[in-house]
Amino acid sequence: MSDLPARVHIHEEGPREGFQIEPGPISTEDKVRFIEALAGTGLREIECVSFVNPRRVPGQADAEDVARWLKRRPGVRYTCLWLNLKGLERAVASGLDLAGRLLVGASEPFTIRNAGMDLKAELGEQKRWLAKYRELGLAVEQVALFTAFGCNFAGDVTPERVVEVTRLSLENAAEAGFQVGKISLADTVGWATPRAVERVVGAVRQRWPDKAIALHLHDTRGVGLANAYAGLKLGVAHFDSSCGGLGGCPFAGHKGAAGNICTEDLVFMCEEMGIDTGVDLDRLIACAQLAEKIVGHPLPGKVMRGGGLGALRARLKAAE
Amino acid sequence: MSDLPARVHIHEEGPREGFQIEPGPISTEDKVRFIEALAGTGLREIECVSFVNPRRVPGQADAEDVARWLKRRPGVRYTCLWLNLKGLERAVASGLDLAGRLLVGASEPFTIRNAGMDLKAELGEQKRWLAKYRELGLAVEQVALFTAFGCNFAGDVTPERVVEVTRLSLENAAEAGFQVGKISLADTVGWATPRAVERVVGAVRQRWPDKAIALHLHDTRGVGLANAYAGLKLGVAHFDSSCGGLGGCPFAGHKGAAGNICTEDLVFMCEEMGIDTGVDLDRLIACAQLAEKIVGHPLPGKVMRGGGLGALRARLKAAE
Repeated sequence: MSDLPARVHIHEEGPREGFQIEPGPISTEDKVRFIEALAGTGLREIECVSFVNPRRVPGQADAEDVARWLKRRPGVRYTCLWLNLKGLERAVASGLDLAGRLLVGASEPFTIRNAGMDLKAELGEQKRWLAKYRELGLAVEQVALFTAFGCNFAGDVTPERVVEVTRLSLENAAEAGFQVGKISLADTVGWATPRAVERVVGAVRQRWPDKAIALHLHDTRGVGLANAYAGLKLGVAHFDSSCGGLGGCPFAGHKGAAGNICTEDLVFMCEEMGIDTGVDLDRLIACAQLAEKIVGHPLPGKVMRGGGLGALRARLKAAE
Repeated sequence: MSDLPARVHIHEEGPREGFQIEPGPISTEDKVRFIEALAGTGLREIECVSFVNPRRVPGQADAEDVARWLKRRPGVRYTCLWLNLKGLERAVASGLDLAGRLLVGASEPFTIRNAGMDLKAELGEQKRWLAKYRELGLAVEQVALFTAFGCNFAGDVTPERVVEVTRLSLENAAEAGFQVGKISLADTVGWATPRAVERVVGAVRQRWPDKAIALHLHDTRGVGLANAYAGLKLGVAHFDSSCGGLGGCPFAGHKGAAGNICTEDLVFMCEEMGIDTGVDLDRLIACAQLAEKIVGHPLPGKVMRGGGLGALRARLKAAE
């Protein structure tokens, strides 16, 4: 009947993506309160913090405290980000849920600027991560590509380039004895369009038909949900998104850099099209409103203002 | 190569949709300045004002002045809206470009609440408009359906209902001797999803394969551009949109009612996918920034903050 997936898996990025870019300090209490509220919506995976250099990202200096204070709910994974082995060690010590990732930039100029590494250096760094993952007994869940659609230093990224850096990363993993089931494609600075999603996802899927594909889409130019829809039409069933549309990439070298696509807008679109997300939209809207209070300025999410349609439909039905 | 149209026609709604909902008064000078700037972007059709009851919509009380003060550019149509025969008479007197429309609500409860008319009364009103169009020698360019995807008083609207009210309107026009080439489907209060667009547009196109279809999409729940993309995939080549995302429907009975999809975000998406819009994106971004200054608060458009990619690509190419 439909080429859309029956169910999508959402990886909530709001706490990490959102609170690291805010100019004002966000209290640890507020972060914990927000994460705990998100865990009550039906979301199964919440990225709580990044273990990054607190001098570079002061908003994440309390990552350990957030992890420690959090009351966890069974069935929810509380994940975290690391960008180097030092961060991974902090992640391990934090006791948060570790989702093993291999990072790689699809655009070399971007990673040279932001991490001081060319592709060769990145692949070398991957080998060190893989050795550590092996030591920790941690599975490698995904290869995650930054800037898979383009970046402001290199311009458009071709599907061939995406396939090539994915292949090199998967080979790295295989050499270390890991089978990786998922490829995550990030539109880090908002270069994607639905057609680019079709081309890039199409190329990756053709090459690795058995691997899951995830999309991490920044809504820099307003086409984030259209890009998500293009992914859904191709059967993509894994999305990163951010409650309220919180966030943005502090290293994107782009003052207009916006956050991830908004979780409740994505949930609305999916559920209205008959795709199960497992998330209670009204509770999620309450979380977005909480996030807005915490950051103290309007967030870009739309459904948090427009409301869902479930309550309206129920009221109309009751009035019949 | 692609199922997307080679070119899309944009009907700019910003001046009308935008300035009628603003709480503060917008000066006639500012309205004229904004319309003149829009006319310099390559947009070929700009809806300037509504001729509606100034007591109900005070922001449009100066519609005649806007029409009179405007310096017009050849090749641009300066259109206007009327909702009854009195408005049509004012429109004729204004000297603006008249695009003959037949209005009809797909949801009867909506038009009863907002215009005090049931479907039968609406069809009767159409007959009076058709007689007046004949007297004026005005072609009927389109049948325009409100709430073609759902509304807060009636819930979901079925494709069958949309086809039925379209058929009745087209028959009305045919009886008066008019052939109508276009059917415009409006998601007045943000009920549409990409899948609903596929269903409704699909049903209308199947019934009238030779007629153009236009989409008027409000971005109440963030899926506006995804809906537009679903339309593009079906070959829809006519879109209403609003510069900066200005606007909203004052009668929608919904405090979260948002404006139309944002013109520059739509232009960005189209041009990046190889669809010609005829619009200069950078000039359009400047218009959105002007609109933001005029209304004195942030507008929801994204590309006006994120910027286009043309200048970035040119800079990268020059640096090669």
